[in-house]
Amino acid sequence: MIDLCFRGQGGSHKPFTVLGIGDDASIHRPEPGMELVISTDTSVEGVHWPVDFDLLKAADRAVCAALSDLAAMGAGALAAWLNVMARDTRAVEIMGMGGVAALQRYDVELAGGDTSRASINALSATVVGQVPEGRAMRRDRAEAGDAVWLLGKVGFASLGIEQWLGGKQDGYFVQYLDDIHPKLQAGARLLELGVKCCIDVSDGVLQDASHLALASSVGMTLELSSFPGWEILCHKVGEKSAIRAVVSGGEDYALLFTASPGMGWLDSFATRVGVCTDDINVEIQLNGTTLEGLTGGYDHFG
Amino acid sequence: MIDLCFRGQGGSHKPFTVLGIGDDASIHRPEPGMELVISTDTSVEGVHWPVDFDLLKAADRAVCAALSDLAAMGAGALAAWLNVMARDTRAVEIMGMGGVAALQRYDVELAGGDTSRASINALSATVVGQVPEGRAMRRDRAEAGDAVWLLGKVGFASLGIEQWLGGKQDGYFVQYLDDIHPKLQAGARLLELGVKCCIDVSDGVLQDASHLALASSVGMTLELSSFPGWEILCHKVGEKSAIRAVVSGGEDYALLFTASPGMGWLDSFATRVGVCTDDINVEIQLNGTTLEGLTGGYDHFG
Repeated sequence: MIDLCFRGQGGSHKPFTVLGIGDDASIHRPEPGMELVISTDTSVEGVHWPVDFDLLKAADRAVCAALSDLAAMGAGALAAWLNVMARDTRAVEIMGMGGVAALQRYDVELAGGDTSRASINALSATVVGQVPEGRAMRRDRAEAGDAVWLLGKVGFASLGIEQWLGGKQDGYFVQYLDDIHPKLQAGARLLELGVKCCIDVSDGVLQDASHLALASSVGMTLELSSFPGWEILCHKVGEKSAIRAVVSGGEDYALLFTASPGMGWLDSFATRVGVCTDDINVEIQLNGTTLEGLTGGYDHFG
Repeated sequence: MIDLCFRGQGGSHKPFTVLGIGDDASIHRPEPGMELVISTDTSVEGVHWPVDFDLLKAADRAVCAALSDLAAMGAGALAAWLNVMARDTRAVEIMGMGGVAALQRYDVELAGGDTSRASINALSATVVGQVPEGRAMRRDRAEAGDAVWLLGKVGFASLGIEQWLGGKQDGYFVQYLDDIHPKLQAGARLLELGVKCCIDVSDGVLQDASHLALASSVGMTLELSSFPGWEILCHKVGEKSAIRAVVSGGEDYALLFTASPGMGWLDSFATRVGVCTDDINVEIQLNGTTLEGLTGGYDHFG
């Protein structure tokens, strides 16, 4: 089915792929001096997207979620494998088209996958990218004193899903569910610029910042009012909901990264939102006052 | 969840993996002179295994189905990524344990994955192996005159599933569902011995042999009475059901491969079941008489 429907779809053929769709497995020749970066991500109807959501867009977003992991490592995307589970043949086709649309947009070769009947619609995407040896951005490279930067908006997608689920499918934030842009180019640029530590923010800032802080054995102080679009969030849904959306809302494709204080020129394409400390906690402040009792992360909505 | 439950599980750490579970993606350094072989496979409860089947074993079998694709290419397995979809936390744990059991048995490192709530239990496994450059066995390497060989039994697993679904959970063939042995070692050995063309038989001999024949632009004649265990099948379920099981039964982990007529010494560890022709059809014979009206392949049972 993948063979019939999707061979030759997706992004352009890469030298990385010696043999693509059509055999028991695909064959690949990695470039000398490069390391491979591999991630996989599953999205399930009713958990990661509302059951009445556009299935094409849902599949596109599911593939983008996997690609966003490559972006966080600074990797150039090479190839993808899609596992499509669907209720019927039509749903297979629509989800395949959605996944392929994402792969075309980022020129990622579709190297394989499978389709399976199931009583739900779901998609697992496995993606492979490459980075120069030893150069991948990782979670465990932050140091106390580093500035914390954010690239992309946080909180907008989860508010969009909330509005959709609340029957407000023309709500202001629903448009952000169409904003299907994993930060692949930006991630690769950060790596080139010497950024060493980065994480994909997809389950709320608190949880993902905590992952990074724990891996790097640092603390972190973040200032919510510095976050991109903070005023819009407050204006549209009020401060309390804005805090919740940023702290524990998911489904955005944003990158949180750290860099030495001297790299202030990064402000030309990211927003400085905090600092790494020699504490062990992630503190989230609003206008300089630490917020208490916050919990994260995003538990989707299944 | 994958991080918490499964980090450090699976097979031993390999030099291939620079950074495993715990970041946005894993990082890998391929060995010079080797190509990577990648496959992915999804198994869904109620489609690939009966709903009342042992979930641990089902997950183990699901991972083995992916590993069997590497076996067919002659690849040595290196690493795996598991996407576990499950109804509840307990099911996640059991399926994770089942998947990990397969990875331990074949010493495949668990390099990543994810877990997701879903209204069904399902598992996608993505596996990476390696072969020396240009040496992978492929479907498109058969030539007219080649002998066709089978390594492993065909038809036994699907009869086991039939018995299980029919309420005969102590039926003779159910034991073959415990026979969880993708032919990884044998596949690697075939490659070493110079075999160039091989396919995993998992959807019935007719369909998989046809895939190979089509890819290689050859025809094929297969003799059912030569198949391993043919007499047992006939004795237990009668000739008609035996034909159906071999021709279109799935869920076995067998390898069908071709080799030049001079390599008759392969009979020390495989069974010669037919010959490649310069026709374009796959003919299946029983005692020299071509069977008509056969259809394949295995449609699972969802």
